[in-house]
Amino acid sequence: MNIHKFMMPEIIFGNGSIQQVGESCLRLGATNVLIVSDPGVIAAGWLDVVIQSCKQAGLKYTTFSDITINPKDEEVEKGCRVYMEHECDSIIGVGGGSSIDVAKAIAILATNGGQIQSYEGVDKIHHPLPPQVMVATTAGSGSEVSQFSVIVDTKKQKKMTIISRSLIPDIAIIDPETLVTKSAELTGATGMDVLTHGIEAYVSLAATPLTDVQAKNAISLVAEYLRPSVASKMNREAKTNMAMASLQSGLAFSNAILGAVHAMSHAVGGKYNLLHGDVNSILLPHVMEYNLLANPKKFADIALFLGMDIRGMSHMEAGRRAIEYVKQLTADIGAPQRLSSIGVEEEEMKKMSLMALHDACMITNPRDVTAEDIEEIFRRAW
Amino acid sequence: MNIHKFMMPEIIFGNGSIQQVGESCLRLGATNVLIVSDPGVIAAGWLDVVIQSCKQAGLKYTTFSDITINPKDEEVEKGCRVYMEHECDSIIGVGGGSSIDVAKAIAILATNGGQIQSYEGVDKIHHPLPPQVMVATTAGSGSEVSQFSVIVDTKKQKKMTIISRSLIPDIAIIDPETLVTKSAELTGATGMDVLTHGIEAYVSLAATPLTDVQAKNAISLVAEYLRPSVASKMNREAKTNMAMASLQSGLAFSNAILGAVHAMSHAVGGKYNLLHGDVNSILLPHVMEYNLLANPKKFADIALFLGMDIRGMSHMEAGRRAIEYVKQLTADIGAPQRLSSIGVEEEEMKKMSLMALHDACMITNPRDVTAEDIEEIFRRAW
Repeated sequence: MNIHKFMMPEIIFGNGSIQQVGESCLRLGATNVLIVSDPGVIAAGWLDVVIQSCKQAGLKYTTFSDITINPKDEEVEKGCRVYMEHECDSIIGVGGGSSIDVAKAIAILATNGGQIQSYEGVDKIHHPLPPQVMVATTAGSGSEVSQFSVIVDTKKQKKMTIISRSLIPDIAIIDPETLVTKSAELTGATGMDVLTHGIEAYVSLAATPLTDVQAKNAISLVAEYLRPSVASKMNREAKTNMAMASLQSGLAFSNAILGAVHAMSHAVGGKYNLLHGDVNSILLPHVMEYNLLANPKKFADIALFLGMDIRGMSHMEAGRRAIEYVKQLTADIGAPQRLSSIGVEEEEMKKMSLMALHDACMITNPRDVTAEDIEEIFRRAW
Repeated sequence: MNIHKFMMPEIIFGNGSIQQVGESCLRLGATNVLIVSDPGVIAAGWLDVVIQSCKQAGLKYTTFSDITINPKDEEVEKGCRVYMEHECDSIIGVGGGSSIDVAKAIAILATNGGQIQSYEGVDKIHHPLPPQVMVATTAGSGSEVSQFSVIVDTKKQKKMTIISRSLIPDIAIIDPETLVTKSAELTGATGMDVLTHGIEAYVSLAATPLTDVQAKNAISLVAEYLRPSVASKMNREAKTNMAMASLQSGLAFSNAILGAVHAMSHAVGGKYNLLHGDVNSILLPHVMEYNLLANPKKFADIALFLGMDIRGMSHMEAGRRAIEYVKQLTADIGAPQRLSSIGVEEEEMKKMSLMALHDACMITNPRDVTAEDIEEIFRRAW
């Protein structure tokens, strides 16, 4: 048996929990906070709620929101200059993966200096980061609990994956109430990202009994609650359960890492400004088909977690049913079905395949891959 | 919906993980460690392994092992004097609940001063504790991950329950290899403690979806692996799974708190020097019978987690089957069946009932209780 490690931040989960952000920073010794958000979060009013909570806690604060949906190295550098100029001592990220990943990346530069490119890969951060409180508002990225930050290298047009335990925030606040402002499209895309996290973590080479428990629960919750959550902004039971699914899949993948879907999706996301969840959603069933051979038993388990009756089936048969289920789910919620339909160009595939091969998420993919294998999967999804 | 909080230490789980204790302390900035263990741990050779690991990490260390199976206030005070005299800056606990609870209590006094009695109850600790690394060797107490420390008040002859998030250690090391030195009796008693943690956390008033996932898994693992673990010292699959059950039930009860079994068991343990797991094991089915009314659905779930086929049954019927199962399990592993058989005296029941009523664990019991109710449960178990 290998030695398993498992880490997570302190979790505060529930409607209204966003109002605890100021007091949470105070507990960590913060006095002067940089609050990182994005235009969508501001429009939805959540930045105001965070500012109010910081004021009530007697904290000084500065805001930074000059970021895009696949956040870029230059945005991180700009945010870090704001942090330094205002002599901040702590960081809040509010939003989805974009805000939170930028907040983490600013935290890296704030105490470790240099350029964000130097931290790409696993365990490249050597100095402790400032206190970090992350407020998740999308039920998708899981970044609020993970040891990941994904930032676009604009020169190389690719997503860099930075993995380090110091990127696990001190406190993660998950407030399902914030999900009611999301569009159906964003709910679908982020929900498929949650499912991808759960499935990739469950079949990852680094999966452990501790991550399996979280992945299993996340997959079952998505199967039950993603459709109703896409159908209605105001279905609070669905929102709460999708927030829990996102949290649990985040805990699973933060500790078990991911696989080929994310490695490939990072390559796509570096070139095209698409919703990360949409790209994952398209790639997921094709990567499952490719990976099925590597662990038929675990893919059969996934069919079970999705609520299917697999009695009497072989593991391979049950695994194939899980793949069909995922395809049907993306169709049901109206998610895009092909890379070509969202603007990905055929001539980019060779280059993207090479990038994906070298992404940190590929290390834990359960089946061996070559650049040619990846290109073939891209073509099937195109 | 309430706001749920969930916290855990960094986990290192697996055969041989005990050898990472020195390096773990180093990562936390330790230079001079107090190692708390007990005579059983020393006899089994685990203290030597820990010392070796500390030496390899270049740490100074002092040992303290003058503790008993239901550890006492005066033992904590003595340990704290050793910590102070040797100018330690960090603490390792190695063993079961006794060693780890004393290590935590020494940590409290080391930076908060005064007497351990002042910290009884919830959230009474105000200064940060020194770095704490706990090495679990019993698959029972869950103390290595919990926010609890239970210490006997010798004057009042009762167990004090101290609950504070600062008691969650920084790093918890769980090495199933250490379980092979345990006797069948201790394996049975600690295993029933694990089951009690899982069941009490699952029906606790403070249970959340995050604690339910852990409790569910722990209950299922006990049902599958406790019997083979009692039957054979060398069944490593059973040991590993009981260690995982202990970890998961620890995470569940640390965050969901416990109930009447523990409140009553603390009252017994303050007066009589008995194995905590044996007392829990006797009380558990009787408290389940009392509590069944409070949440029939959750007791029916427990029957399912225990592996029973409850199709067609009402929640109450299924819940009663879970209670029968627990009784049968204690019989199968040869655990004591009645309080009278382990020396508890009938004339103490009134006093113990009053103590149990005021134990911090009673706050989250799912059914209201009076001192008379507790006395009645004690009588049924006597």
